[in-house]
Amino acid sequence: MTNSRYETGLNIMNKIFGEAAASHTRGNLKETAPDFEKMLVEFPFGDLYSRPRLDVKTREIVTISSLAALGFAAPQLKVHINGALNVGCTEEEIIEIMMQLAVYAGFPAALNGLNAAKEVFDSRKS
Amino acid sequence: MTNSRYETGLNIMNKIFGEAAASHTRGNLKETAPDFEKMLVEFPFGDLYSRPRLDVKTREIVTISSLAALGFAAPQLKVHINGALNVGCTEEEIIEIMMQLAVYAGFPAALNGLNAAKEVFDSRKS
Amino acid sequence: MTNSRYETGLNIMNKIFGEAAASHTRGNLKETAPDFEKMLVEFPFGDLYSRPRLDVKTREIVTISSLAALGFAAPQLKVHINGALNVGCTEEEIIEIMMQLAVYAGFPAALNGLNAAKEVFDSRKS
Amino acid sequence: MTNSRYETGLNIMNKIFGEAAASHTRGNLKETAPDFEKMLVEFPFGDLYSRPRLDVKTREIVTISSLAALGFAAPQLKVHINGALNVGCTEEEIIEIMMQLAVYAGFPAALNGLNAAKEVFDSRKS
Amino acid sequence: MTNSRYETGLNIMNKIFGEAAASHTRGNLKETAPDFEKMLVEFPFGDLYSRPRLDVKTREIVTISSLAALGFAAPQLKVHINGALNVGCTEEEIIEIMMQLAVYAGFPAALNGLNAAKEVFDSRKS
Amino acid sequence: MTNSRYETGLNIMNKIFGEAAASHTRGNLKETAPDFEKMLVEFPFGDLYSRPRLDVKTREIVTISSLAALGFAAPQLKVHINGALNVGCTEEEIIEIMMQLAVYAGFPAALNGLNAAKEVFDSRKS
Repeated sequence: MTNSRYETGLNIMNKIFGEAAASHTRGNLKETAPDFEKMLVEFPFGDLYSRPRLDVKTREIVTISSLAALGFAAPQLKVHINGALNVGCTEEEIIEIMMQLAVYAGFPAALNGLNAAKEVFDSRKS
Repeated sequence: MTNSRYETGLNIMNKIFGEAAASHTRGNLKETAPDFEKMLVEFPFGDLYSRPRLDVKTREIVTISSLAALGFAAPQLKVHINGALNVGCTEEEIIEIMMQLAVYAGFPAALNGLNAAKEVFDSRKS
Repeated sequence: MTNSRYETGLNIMNKIFGEAAASHTRGNLKETAPDFEKMLVEFPFGDLYSRPRLDVKTREIVTISSLAALGFAAPQLKVHINGALNVGCTEEEIIEIMMQLAVYAGFPAALNGLNAAKEVFDSRKS
Repeated sequence: MTNSRYETGLNIMNKIFGEAAASHTRGNLKETAPDFEKMLVEFPFGDLYSRPRLDVKTREIVTISSLAALGFAAPQLKVHINGALNVGCTEEEIIEIMMQLAVYAGFPAALNGLNAAKEVFDSRKS
Repeated sequence: MTNSRYETGLNIMNKIFGEAAASHTRGNLKETAPDFEKMLVEFPFGDLYSRPRLDVKTREIVTISSLAALGFAAPQLKVHINGALNVGCTEEEIIEIMMQLAVYAGFPAALNGLNAAKEVFDSRKS
Repeated sequence: MTNSRYETGLNIMNKIFGEAAASHTRGNLKETAPDFEKMLVEFPFGDLYSRPRLDVKTREIVTISSLAALGFAAPQLKVHINGALNVGCTEEEIIEIMMQLAVYAGFPAALNGLNAAKEVFDSRKS
């Protein structure tokens, strides 16, 4: 059931999200769609986040920018804003990303992204 | 007609895209919607790209990630891939961004982004 | 107020969603936009779902795939997941559809689709 | 094959797009999907554009705003920009709509909308 | 911190949304991203809504049509439905816009738009 | 460089698209992003299309429905319409899918899907 792609992915997920949050995400999925839990660990994290050429902080900037632009991915956006903060992004950088997205994805996408960021920032303080 | 937001924006556009490309973009717009040419220089470039907290290379990564995720913005994506290369992104980094977007925006968005990147890379070689 | 397109559509809605759920959907709409309630019964269900060439189960697969890909249509997605189960889709097939959509619409759309499916599956058990 | 919804829709299509353009659109569709040609005339034009509460010019403003925001609907956007001009919109109003959409759908959607508008404006002059 | 673009924008926001609602929107933003609060007042409202060529009611029709078509912008859609009613749109016109969007953005976008409209209509009655 | 996921994926790609078309798609990608060519074969085709629970024809219906709903994925839509015809879909079924998508993704997405289908149908006749 595990292999090196899975192990690599799991290590990176734990590093980005923390073991508790990564385990929570995977736990929900294991119940509904166990094979997809495996794919989620292996493909995005085992295959892609583990590659050189972009460091993990830059990868989180790419992910956050695309999720906020899509507009409908609030749950994943919050998970990755938390991850971005864990791997070296500052709150100021994340706010700055959302502001810039107003130009490309529109003000509503930016405002919803700022609201998601505020929720994550607050949750880390409590 | 010009002011300091416009001048700031124009300087940054010239730095990112080169004077010829920036002038071409603005020229088309001046003919159809001259007030929007002013807004395009002033708001995205004069107000946002000129801010601290994210360097211009990181801003281009944010922009490229959002444009490729939107899927319908091929003309703007090519302009900004060219800009990203001008301000320090490598071809390898841009390809890596598109690959990662397969996870978040889907393989078609990633493949169309890679095609846009290839077109820009080729145009700079000829 | 009724006609054959409306009657045809109502029969198909009742068959797919059950009379109670179909009546609930229509009831809400009748209050806010009664003419649109008529259009909703007549066009999607009276005109399209009633046609030959695709059986109703396949039509629900088409609908679920498009709704999950759009990303913003969670309420309608849940209604149609329920409908799909009523007309012969299995839970396993619906999970499989969401997994495959990770490729085309991205992992966030797939994960949100799986969450919607889990909610519907659970609601049918209680 | 015709009925009053079809006839109502055809009259409105001819009024908005002109007989030649409306016939061209329908002709293409009649070849590939004749039943969909019927639905296109009957539902959007026979059922909706024919209703009171919004005049046809306002309906074209709604349509153009949504098509430009969607981003991927350039062919339909051009058809409706032409229609909007035929039913009383000015070029200035259409440009103004696209400019405002920069706020809500982002600058790329606005720029692509302005390009579509320019193409239509030019085609009417030649 | 204020200037004429800001003052112009604030006047228009107050006129469209009412002082309390406009102040509420700005207050949230001032806390998280104060520079973006300034941009939100200045660019959409100070630069665009203040322009001639489209009256404020027509601008709200453009905005509502694009927000409902995007699908993911429910919070902003509700704010602007409220604004539209304040500047002269009737409930019937807003319902009619949503119905027409079923053609261009699909029935789920239209249904979600109608639900947003119903929420706003109800909130104004209580 | 190859492994069993790659071999499984390649076999399925060849079965769906034909060896010439599959080789063409992969060839373009091998030049620009060779690691992504590997991922494209392995993840969508090696991991997902090879699974039980949905037959390949149904998987193509899921894919076509999502691609047409996204709206911006015309190149991939044409590739998969061709694949769908190769694995047992009829032209009539594909037209019927596009017609139904008018309800969920809007008429423009449906019309663009029908145009893509017509192009593929014609290319197979010449």
